[in-house]
Amino acid sequence: MTAETSCDLSIAEVRLTPVLVADPPLLNTQGVHQPYTPRLIVEVVTADGITGLGETYGDTKYLELARPLADRLAGRPVTELNGLSALAGEVAVDPSRASGRVDVGGLRGVQTAEKLRLSVLSAFEVACLDALGQALGLPVHALLGGRVRDAVEYSGYLFYRWAGHPEGVAGEKDDWGAALDPAGVVAQARAFKERYGFRSFKLKGGVFPPDEETAAVRALAEAFPGHPLRLDPNGAWSVETSLRVARELADVLEYLEDPALGTPAMAEVAAGTEVPLATNMCVTTFAEIEEAFTRGAVQVLLCDHHYWGGLRATRELAAVCRAFGVGVSMHSNTHLGISLAAMTHVASTVPDLHHACDTHYPWQSEDVLTERLAFRDGTIAVPDAPGLGVTLDRDRMAALHERWLTGDGALRDRDDEAAMRIANPAWATPTVPRW
Amino acid sequence: MTAETSCDLSIAEVRLTPVLVADPPLLNTQGVHQPYTPRLIVEVVTADGITGLGETYGDTKYLELARPLADRLAGRPVTELNGLSALAGEVAVDPSRASGRVDVGGLRGVQTAEKLRLSVLSAFEVACLDALGQALGLPVHALLGGRVRDAVEYSGYLFYRWAGHPEGVAGEKDDWGAALDPAGVVAQARAFKERYGFRSFKLKGGVFPPDEETAAVRALAEAFPGHPLRLDPNGAWSVETSLRVARELADVLEYLEDPALGTPAMAEVAAGTEVPLATNMCVTTFAEIEEAFTRGAVQVLLCDHHYWGGLRATRELAAVCRAFGVGVSMHSNTHLGISLAAMTHVASTVPDLHHACDTHYPWQSEDVLTERLAFRDGTIAVPDAPGLGVTLDRDRMAALHERWLTGDGALRDRDDEAAMRIANPAWATPTVPRW
Repeated sequence: MTAETSCDLSIAEVRLTPVLVADPPLLNTQGVHQPYTPRLIVEVVTADGITGLGETYGDTKYLELARPLADRLAGRPVTELNGLSALAGEVAVDPSRASGRVDVGGLRGVQTAEKLRLSVLSAFEVACLDALGQALGLPVHALLGGRVRDAVEYSGYLFYRWAGHPEGVAGEKDDWGAALDPAGVVAQARAFKERYGFRSFKLKGGVFPPDEETAAVRALAEAFPGHPLRLDPNGAWSVETSLRVARELADVLEYLEDPALGTPAMAEVAAGTEVPLATNMCVTTFAEIEEAFTRGAVQVLLCDHHYWGGLRATRELAAVCRAFGVGVSMHSNTHLGISLAAMTHVASTVPDLHHACDTHYPWQSEDVLTERLAFRDGTIAVPDAPGLGVTLDRDRMAALHERWLTGDGALRDRDDEAAMRIANPAWATPTVPRW
Repeated sequence: MTAETSCDLSIAEVRLTPVLVADPPLLNTQGVHQPYTPRLIVEVVTADGITGLGETYGDTKYLELARPLADRLAGRPVTELNGLSALAGEVAVDPSRASGRVDVGGLRGVQTAEKLRLSVLSAFEVACLDALGQALGLPVHALLGGRVRDAVEYSGYLFYRWAGHPEGVAGEKDDWGAALDPAGVVAQARAFKERYGFRSFKLKGGVFPPDEETAAVRALAEAFPGHPLRLDPNGAWSVETSLRVARELADVLEYLEDPALGTPAMAEVAAGTEVPLATNMCVTTFAEIEEAFTRGAVQVLLCDHHYWGGLRATRELAAVCRAFGVGVSMHSNTHLGISLAAMTHVASTVPDLHHACDTHYPWQSEDVLTERLAFRDGTIAVPDAPGLGVTLDRDRMAALHERWLTGDGALRDRDDEAAMRIANPAWATPTVPRW
C-alpha cells in the first residue's frame, strides 16, 4: 500500500542567474524606475534532474547572500523548508550591515539583515516547492493545502510616468505614453482595462502634491464607477495631509495605502478616518506586527512573499491577520512571471484574501518564461500543472543575463533616486513628510 | 522531466469507527475520568486503496458531525485541505447548539459550534495528510515543511488518582496505585521517569486545596532537582490564590497553567507574577487570541491540533504566537497512538517549540495500532516512514468498537462529573473559583 518516493528529492545543484529586466520610467516619491531592474533567477535542480524555479531581487547585496546560501542547499531534500531559515541564518551578512540597519533598497519598510535574508530565502523556498511539485505531480497550491479559488484577481497598478527614459539613457521603448495628470492616469487605466480586464485600480502616489493625486483618483472614480480604488503615496504625507485626503476620497477609496510613514503616524491617521489603511511599509516583518495591530495602525496588510520569507510565511502572515481581524492583500515590486505564478499559487490558497492583489507584471514586457502569464478579466487562472506551472526559456534568460553582464556596468543595484538625478541633477529623495 | 502523479488521490471512502478506550480514575477539578473514554477513529481511503488515519473525540455530538462531513469528503482529493473548513461549515450543528454555547465537553475552554466543527475536521485533516504522505512516499512532517528536530520531548503528566475505579463500576485494572498526596505524586513521577524517561513533569491540580498541591509540587522539585515542573488546576483558583501559589512556587515552576478562569482573571494574575502563565482554556480558538495577547494574559499557549483544527492550523497558531513573543507548548486529553503520532509530526516542524509537550498516552494501556509508540528519554522519535508512520491493528480496533457497541449502553459521552457522582452522590462540578 505504501511505497517510498521513487524519486530522489535531494538538491544536486543550485544555479543563480542575475538578469536585467526592462522597466519603464515609472515615478514614485523616491524618484523613477531605472531603465533596467536587476532580478535574480534561482534554479534548484534535484538529483533526478527536476528543475524548480524561484525569483527575487537581484541587487548586489542579495546576490552576495544568495551564493553562500545556494552552496549550503546542496544535498538537502527540497522538502526541508522549515530548516531554511536556520540555514539562511548561518550565512553572514556583511558586518557593516548585520549590526543593524541594512539597505535592502526601495520603499519596502524596515531595513534589517534578517529581512535581507528572508528576501533571498524566499526564492529558494519557491524553487524548492516548484521542484517538489513537479517531482510529485502536484501543483504548488496543492503543496500549500489546495486552492480555494480558480483564479486570483489582480489590481491594475497605475503609475505616473514619462513616455520614455531621459534622453541619452539606454532603455527599451514602450507604447504607453506619459501619464502626468488626471487625464493621463485615466487614459492609462483605460488601456489597462482594455488589455487586461482589471476591475480595480491602484495609483502609485507621492509624486505630485496631494491635491493633484486626489484629483486623479476622483477622475478614476468618475471614469470607472464601482471599481475599487487605492492610492499609495509611500508614506510621503503628514498625518494632517493623510486625514485630509482620506476625508476627500472616503467615498471612493477601497483603502489608502501607507499615507504616512511608520506605525505611530499610521495609528494616528487610522484613529481619524473610516477609510481602511493598508501597508507594505510600516509592517514588513513579523516583529513589527504586534505594535501595529495592537495600536490599530493598519486594517489591510499587503503581504509580499519575497520579503516575508516565502509562500508558507505568506500563509502564516495571513493566519496572524485573520486572528486579529486585519485584511490581507498583496504587494508587488518589479517582478517576472516566476514570481507572478508563485503569488498566484499562494493567493489561491488563502481563504480570506478579499482584495485584488497588486502586480507590476503588465509593466514588464520581458520575461524568462516560454509563455507569459495572461490576465483574463483582471485575473490569473491558478495553474494546475505540477509545480508552479511555468517553463523557463533559457534563451530569453541568457539574453537578459547577457545584458546584466555586458550592459551599463554601473547598473547592479536598483536606485530610483539616481535615475531621477539624470533628469534632475538636483534631485534627492525628499524627506518625509513631503507634504 | 515532469510527470503527473501516478496515483489517484481522490477519496473513495471514509470509515468512522467509534471506540471505547480504557481510562484510569484520574482526578481533576470537574470529577474523575470514567473507566472508558469514547474516541473516534477516522479512516480516509483513496481511490488507490491507501488508508489514512485520524483520531478525535468520540462523544455523540462529535459523531453526529463526523458522519455528514465524511459523506461530503468522497470524491475530493486528499490535497484539498484549505477547503475543509468551508466544507465543515456546511454541516449543520444541532440548532440548539448552533446558536451559541455548545457543550463540547471537558475542560477545554469556550464551547462553540465552530470549535466542535474544528475538533471533527482535525481528524479528517490528519487522515488526509497520512494518506497523502503514504501516496507520495513522504512522512507527514515533510508535508508540513520538514522536521527541525529528530525527537519530540513530552512531559510526564501526573494525576492525583485512585488505585481503581469505584466498586461495582466496570473498568480495566492497572498497577499504578493511588496518588493522593505529595508522596503518592512523587512515587508516580518516579515510575513515570523509570518507564518513559520523562525529564519534566506536569501535575493536574484543582483537585485538593492549593496548599496540598503546592506541597506536592515542592516535593517533586526536591525529588527531581532541575526538572521543569508545571501545575494545572484548570482555572479552579481565584486571582488571589493564583498569585499566592505563583509566589510560593516561583523558584520551581516552568509555568503555571490556567490558575484562574478566563482572560480577565489570567491577565490579572499575569500582571502580578513573573511566573509564565500557560493556557488551554482561556485561548482555545483564534478568535480569543487578540484579547488575551493584547492584555498579556498568557505567556505560553498550549496548542491542541484536535480543537484548533488540525496540524496546519497548529502551525499557524505557532506563527501567531511567534509574532507576539508568546511561547508554544502542547495540550493533551485522553488519546491514542494515531494522535500521538500526529502531535509528534507537527511538533517536530515548529522551530520555537521550547517546552515539552503534554500527553496522556502513558495512561492509555490500549491502542488501535499494531505497535505502540515508545518513549525514549521522555521523547518520541519523529517517524520518517511515509504518512504518520503508524499501522492500524484492525482486530484491536474491532475489539474496542465492540466495547463501544455492547458495553455499558450509557457510556456514549465523556462525563467526569457523573463518574465522580458514583463515588460521591452529592458531587457537582464546583463553581469557580473553587479556592
